[in-house]
Amino acid sequence: MGVITLTTDFGTSDWFVGTMKGVILSVNPSAAIVDITHELPAGDIHAGAFALTACHAFFPRGPVHVAVVDPGVGSERDAIVLRTRNHVFVGPDNGVLSLATDAQEVLAIHRIENKTLFRNPVSSSFHGRDVFAPVAAHLCRGTPIQKVGPRVKDFVKLNPPLPRAGKDSIRGEVIYVDRFGNAITNIDSRMLSGLAGSDRHIAVRGRRICELSSHYAAVAKGKPVALINSCNLLEIAVNGGSAAHRFRLNRGTIISIRAGS
Amino acid sequence: MGVITLTTDFGTSDWFVGTMKGVILSVNPSAAIVDITHELPAGDIHAGAFALTACHAFFPRGPVHVAVVDPGVGSERDAIVLRTRNHVFVGPDNGVLSLATDAQEVLAIHRIENKTLFRNPVSSSFHGRDVFAPVAAHLCRGTPIQKVGPRVKDFVKLNPPLPRAGKDSIRGEVIYVDRFGNAITNIDSRMLSGLAGSDRHIAVRGRRICELSSHYAAVAKGKPVALINSCNLLEIAVNGGSAAHRFRLNRGTIISIRAGS
Amino acid sequence: MGVITLTTDFGTSDWFVGTMKGVILSVNPSAAIVDITHELPAGDIHAGAFALTACHAFFPRGPVHVAVVDPGVGSERDAIVLRTRNHVFVGPDNGVLSLATDAQEVLAIHRIENKTLFRNPVSSSFHGRDVFAPVAAHLCRGTPIQKVGPRVKDFVKLNPPLPRAGKDSIRGEVIYVDRFGNAITNIDSRMLSGLAGSDRHIAVRGRRICELSSHYAAVAKGKPVALINSCNLLEIAVNGGSAAHRFRLNRGTIISIRAGS
Repeated sequence: MGVITLTTDFGTSDWFVGTMKGVILSVNPSAAIVDITHELPAGDIHAGAFALTACHAFFPRGPVHVAVVDPGVGSERDAIVLRTRNHVFVGPDNGVLSLATDAQEVLAIHRIENKTLFRNPVSSSFHGRDVFAPVAAHLCRGTPIQKVGPRVKDFVKLNPPLPRAGKDSIRGEVIYVDRFGNAITNIDSRMLSGLAGSDRHIAVRGRRICELSSHYAAVAKGKPVALINSCNLLEIAVNGGSAAHRFRLNRGTIISIRAGS
Repeated sequence: MGVITLTTDFGTSDWFVGTMKGVILSVNPSAAIVDITHELPAGDIHAGAFALTACHAFFPRGPVHVAVVDPGVGSERDAIVLRTRNHVFVGPDNGVLSLATDAQEVLAIHRIENKTLFRNPVSSSFHGRDVFAPVAAHLCRGTPIQKVGPRVKDFVKLNPPLPRAGKDSIRGEVIYVDRFGNAITNIDSRMLSGLAGSDRHIAVRGRRICELSSHYAAVAKGKPVALINSCNLLEIAVNGGSAAHRFRLNRGTIISIRAGS
Repeated sequence: MGVITLTTDFGTSDWFVGTMKGVILSVNPSAAIVDITHELPAGDIHAGAFALTACHAFFPRGPVHVAVVDPGVGSERDAIVLRTRNHVFVGPDNGVLSLATDAQEVLAIHRIENKTLFRNPVSSSFHGRDVFAPVAAHLCRGTPIQKVGPRVKDFVKLNPPLPRAGKDSIRGEVIYVDRFGNAITNIDSRMLSGLAGSDRHIAVRGRRICELSSHYAAVAKGKPVALINSCNLLEIAVNGGSAAHRFRLNRGTIISIRAGS
């Protein structure tokens, strides 16, 4: 029994996701299908790429990860399959697969072209159902990746912003805001531990908002807190509240950390 | 392993859907349960009927489709099972099953009456849990449909609005707005292809809004676009935006198409 | 194949729940995972406890119920496993498990301490992924409960408000508002049936709003109705509308019932 994960912006108020599952089960009745999320902001490739990065390594060996954030559906954009040591990724070639594969070697890239694996006819607006679901189901059943189409050399990559480290400060930015209003930054624990001094202040728009703590409840209810989160990234939160709302944090908001004396 | 699909207005913020799944698995531990949607507007039988129509054909042969949009729960309304060549449908007899079965022969209609298949006692407010879930699970396990209750002659049908085609124009209406704000109309591709002239303009409230394209990204971001969607119906969208919001499109909004010269 | 249910406030817009499922399937590939809800208000232990109470008994014998509403994650709060005759419950020791176990004998309480069952390293912000998911998966596979950690004597209990019954009246309160705006009270059917007189009026803030009916559609659309719901509790609803909105009902709103002459 193979695992197929689904990460989309299709929402759950319509029939889109259920229909993809029907197609998957038609091809591969024993696939275990796991929803990552379907509530990505419509067309938000960066959010989809980040969600896939955050979750994919927690699945048992050999999963097929399908990510469909696909504003270009029906256009000339390519569809691809990426294979790494432990994972297979399926989606449009628009960058949505490119963060999850950042930290692992991509062993093969194939362009999805083999129409015999698709539903027929292929609609121009729902490749999740007609292309990605059946291709993933075939791959999960054991169809070799080279059957999906020709091997290609490259795929579209997002260029996520990188933090900059000075001697006694780091300047990064918010890359994701979660449902609790926690703001996840691009500053990781290794970079933080390289910062001299034990007294580390987090600032937004020149205003110090908190120090680094170990967990949310280390501060009183309603107080801001920064911690290394479960993705190993610096996260700014408010205990029992929304940091995004309180400090107007969005993707791209600059976050700086300065070590005290 | 049989498939049971669930289409309801129960939402996902409470325990209703999870409880139905518990009941299904209690009767039939190997059922594969697929959520179509649980976010139908409360009591919106038309939306439920349309969602079921749009998804059901994409499931492997023999699924049991459960649709519970049931404002009359606990009243004298009947509960029914419909059997077609490849599908079984279970739900209240209020029209919610009647669009999916429009395009296929209904081979048998049975009224659900056999209390030995129900949970006991049956509540007056949650037949999804006490009647529909266990009946579907039994049917999925192979219980013959005649066991659920007596065969009856007819069931409640919705009367969906039909488009009207003139020589050089078609007048239809919006029948569903999806999560992206795309407005799906009752005008299908066959009807459209019967329209003389290649220059086909879509108009709302007397105002031309766009021509027919092949896919969303055929127009610039923020521009309106009309296309034949994955249900084979004319759909009005805004590339990267919400057509429903932009053009105030709701179910029932009249849409006209006029062929140019 | 064992069943694991998940009740959390993680939402479905991020990757949290999908990641927990990946961890569960990594430990126990054949677990059947059922979502109860992930849309609990953030940090709302009472809502989580009530949802678990309302659903757990409808699962086949032997399920592992995981409830993660965990504002104290990473702090010194304990994590526990409870075993009753037919169920196993896993979660933080903050009361979230304590309503479901109110009506059944708790046969064993164990504190979760065995790090060999955890993911390693354990983050300070996501014990759903690193502690509760793997422990539940191990328990579902047959790991004996005593392996999770030492047996302890007690666990944190919520003190739900109790209704007070007089000779010809009952005074209770709203304990949960569902997605339809139905307000569920702490007054159960047994208490109601003890109320003399057949004419029973429900009042909020001194204002009579309706009598007791058998089902929602027993009153006209838009009218208020009270009934014994599927949890066997008095519920106040508006047929086709939201009682919570109409009568400003929240958790804690006092509800009184008075028997007529």
